[in-house]
Formats: sequence, C-alpha cells, structure tokens
Amino acid sequence: MRDYSRDHRWLSINTATVRKSGGVDLPLPDIIEACVRKGIRAISPWRDQVAAAGLANVSKLVRTHGLELSGYCRGGMFPAADAAGLKAARDDNRRAVDEASELNAACLVLVVGGLPGALQGRPAHKDIALSRTQVRDGIAELLDYAKQARMPLAIEPLHPMYAADRACINTLEQALDVCDALDPGKTGALGVAVDAYHVWWDPKLQEQIARAGKERLLAFHVCDWLTPTTDLLNDRGMMGDGVIDLPQMRGWVEAQGFAGYSEVEIFSTGNWWQRPHEEVLDTCIARHRTAV
Amino acid sequence: MRDYSRDHRWLSINTATVRKSGGVDLPLPDIIEACVRKGIRAISPWRDQVAAAGLANVSKLVRTHGLELSGYCRGGMFPAADAAGLKAARDDNRRAVDEASELNAACLVLVVGGLPGALQGRPAHKDIALSRTQVRDGIAELLDYAKQARMPLAIEPLHPMYAADRACINTLEQALDVCDALDPGKTGALGVAVDAYHVWWDPKLQEQIARAGKERLLAFHVCDWLTPTTDLLNDRGMMGDGVIDLPQMRGWVEAQGFAGYSEVEIFSTGNWWQRPHEEVLDTCIARHRTAV
Repeated sequence: MRDYSRDHRWLSINTATVRKSGGVDLPLPDIIEACVRKGIRAISPWRDQVAAAGLANVSKLVRTHGLELSGYCRGGMFPAADAAGLKAARDDNRRAVDEASELNAACLVLVVGGLPGALQGRPAHKDIALSRTQVRDGIAELLDYAKQARMPLAIEPLHPMYAADRACINTLEQALDVCDALDPGKTGALGVAVDAYHVWWDPKLQEQIARAGKERLLAFHVCDWLTPTTDLLNDRGMMGDGVIDLPQMRGWVEAQGFAGYSEVEIFSTGNWWQRPHEEVLDTCIARHRTAV
Repeated sequence: MRDYSRDHRWLSINTATVRKSGGVDLPLPDIIEACVRKGIRAISPWRDQVAAAGLANVSKLVRTHGLELSGYCRGGMFPAADAAGLKAARDDNRRAVDEASELNAACLVLVVGGLPGALQGRPAHKDIALSRTQVRDGIAELLDYAKQARMPLAIEPLHPMYAADRACINTLEQALDVCDALDPGKTGALGVAVDAYHVWWDPKLQEQIARAGKERLLAFHVCDWLTPTTDLLNDRGMMGDGVIDLPQMRGWVEAQGFAGYSEVEIFSTGNWWQRPHEEVLDTCIARHRTAV
C-alpha cells in the first residue's frame, strides 16, 4: 500500500466537496485556484460547475496549472419514459464524453439513473428491471462513442438507497456484470468507480474488488458514513469521522494494482458546505494522510 | 397467486404501524381491539409494546380473540464490544424466544445488529466483518435454544442504509448464506423475513427468493419506498404510494409456496403516525386489496 502519511500526492478533490464555502456557492475557478494553492494536483469537477465557468475557461485553467482530472462528473441518467427522453440522454452523454475529453479526464463517471421521473418525485413506473435494461443499452451505445474518443467510462454503483431516483446499479457485482457483458476483453474502455460511501456495507466487496482487477478499477472515491446519518443525500462525513474502514478498502483496491488518486467527494449541507473552503481543503489534506 | 382483491384474509398488521394514533402513543391492547374490530386476523407486535402491556395480558388478549402472530419483533442485536455485552444479548434473545413462544408467534424476527454502539452514535469500532462473525455466532447459539422451544428464527436482511447501526446482514443472499451454514438441512428452524422495503432494490432478489424456497420464507413484510424519502428510518410509505412493485414480489414469494400473511410494517413519523389509527387500518385494508 502506498504511504499516504507524508504528503498528499494522491489526493484529488471532487469539486462538489467545496461547492459551497461558508454556505455560499463557490465558482469552479476559485475552487481550482484554492486547490492549486494547497498543492493539490488533481480534481474531479461537475458538469454544472464547468458549464457555469465555461468549458474553454476551465480547460485553460486546468492546463495552465498542470492539474489532472481523476474523473469527470458525470454522465448517465439513461432511463427515460419515452423515445425522446432516451435520445436526449444519449445526446447529453455524448456531450459529456466530449467535455471529459476536452478536460483530459481520466474517465467519465456514470451515475446511471433509476426510475424515470423519480428524482423529480414523479416516477413514471415501478419497473426497475426495465430501467436496468435501458441502462445497459445506454452504456452499450455510449461505449462505442467513448471508445472513439478514447474516454474510459466508469460505472459508479450507487448505494441502494438511491436505487429509485439516482442509479439502479447498486452493487459492485452488478456493475461488473455489465462491464463483463459489454467489454468482455477488459480493454480499459469500461470499468467502475468505487466510492466507499456507496459500497462499504457490501459483504461481497473485497471479492468483487478482486474480480474487478486493475483493468476495471478506474476511480476510487472516499468520504465517510456518519452515525447517525440525517439526510439520504447531503450528510456525508469527512474521512475519519464515520464508520468506514477506508485504509482497509484502499488496501483492497491497491492490491489489484490501482495506483490512481483517492478522490474526496463530500456532500454536506449542514456541516462542510457551511465552512470556509480553505478549512475544508486543509481538513481533506490532513485526513488524507491519517484516515485514508 | 392468491386473490387479495376480495378480502383481507391474509393481512397482518405489524403493530409498529399504529404505534401512534394522531401522534399519541397507542397501547397494544387498544391496537389489538381495533384490529379485531376491522376483521384483521393477524398481528406482529413489538417487544416494547408487549412489555408495556404485560406479556400475560397480551397473551390472554391474543388467545381470546383467536389472533395469529405472523411474527414477533424482534430478537437480534448480537454484536457487542465485550463479553458482557455478548452475554447480555444472548440472554435477552432467549427471553425473546420465550415471549414469542408464549404468544404462539409464527417466528421470531431477527434484526441482527451492526457495529456495537453505532445506534447510540458511539460506534466502538469499524470492523463490520467482526460484527458479522458475532452475528453468525449469536444466531448459531440462539438456534439451539429456539429449536428446543420450536420457535423458528427469521433473519431479516435490512436495507444497506442500516448496516452501521441496525443490521449488518443486508441482502437476502447474505442471510441465506447464514441459513445454509447453520441449518443446511432446511429444517424449518431457521429462515428469513423478506421485507419489501429492505430488499426491493436488489438485482438478485428474484433469484434469491427462489433459492430461499418455501422452507426458508418465514415472513413477508410490505410497505412502500417513497420518492423522495425524507428520513432514513421513519418515512416509509403506504403500499401503493411508492415505487415498489409489491404484486410482483408477492408473486415471486408465493411461487415458492409461501402461503402466509402479508404483514404491513410502516414507520412514519410525519404522516401515518399522525393520523387516527382507525384511518390507518382502513387504508391498510384497502391497499392490501389493491396494491399488494
């Protein structure tokens, strides 16, 4: 296992972590400048943040500072209630691939979607098997496009509590089944993003990380699970503040040869988003050394 | 599949569903009387409710009215931080078996526990594998006692969002692995409680229900998953108000020969617990006919 205790060479900041500073929206260029000042070498930005700042502008900033992108958040949301919706998702995902390429991201992270309309509180149906079929078909189609752009796609299994509204791929095993079906040759074009928050509970986690192997392990995300957790989406904990044994999980991932970044992704309406982003970044650096 | 549309012969009320009426605690004897008035033939009471009303009193009420118990809630909570805690859990679980026997319950439901102390916000450690070992050992020991009392034990896999604080058995597959290890002969002494809320998201659900078979399917619980869900514990939906395809799941269970009750278990601080219990029971009856 790599020694994280001495520096933060392998720390990446998912920019949602400092989406707000002191409760106020923090623009992506400010996030980038702050990361650079802290000696952080990689980020993973969200599409809405990039769009707000302008893709060309962000691309230039990233190149100027020599920043790496451990991933780009996010494509996916494949299921739809009708053909027009499916086509809109396809087109939007192609744009996401293009943006990820422009930013030279290591991969495009896929949050695959759940029941169409559920995220808006109006689920169109209850057929999660249908959504799963649409997800598989959507990834298959996008994969052709992404291969041409040489942009790896990373399926992110989301915690089962998001099955209805955000992602109907909910275990690493399920994600790898899709990978094996669509990319049996393990070409590197399709893999998974392992986010500790989503998968820590899984009794088959170690086994499935071994199954994934280096070829499929495209990203590793960290934060922590708090007890109690007061909100399904935006109460993630800072590494070390919860119950996830992150060093153990990183050990499992690195045992497969994963040598990429540990990307910190914390959504925290009540706590971290209320603090100054400088403090949040300092804490990420400190915890990266001691708790990851 | 049994026809539920004409009556509520196979409806059971988990008494947590009407734990409060109009926001005020409703004692178990009142719940029982209300169920009897509605022609409900089965309940599944909680230990704290039974303790408050007195075991002998509840036992007499149940017998007088000819009520069946589709289950008894609940044993479990096996993991502990020290030997004294493990022994306390063992002793308490034996009392739960005794109470279930006195009430002639169909099974004792096991919510197995997670990381010791996590439910109180003070997790003693992060080693969920250790908790899982303690759970297995605890069930093994209790099984000997329960067999003598002829009280079947039903392991209830809980939704992964409860892995830290309530139950570290989180999929039907995992529960069945424990059953197969401890009761390879499928004697009927050990099985599972399939609660739709906890397992609906699982891509392996149909396969694992088939694996369970009639011998392991000891209980079937229903409610619904709301979008959005505003609380991790107490925002369960009434059948038909959410995204779970309950008739499909009941079909899978009954295809294995399950012929027991559909037990309604709804925790709902903001909605159903605020309503008069008569209305809640009437709604359960109506939805049992149309949405289960």
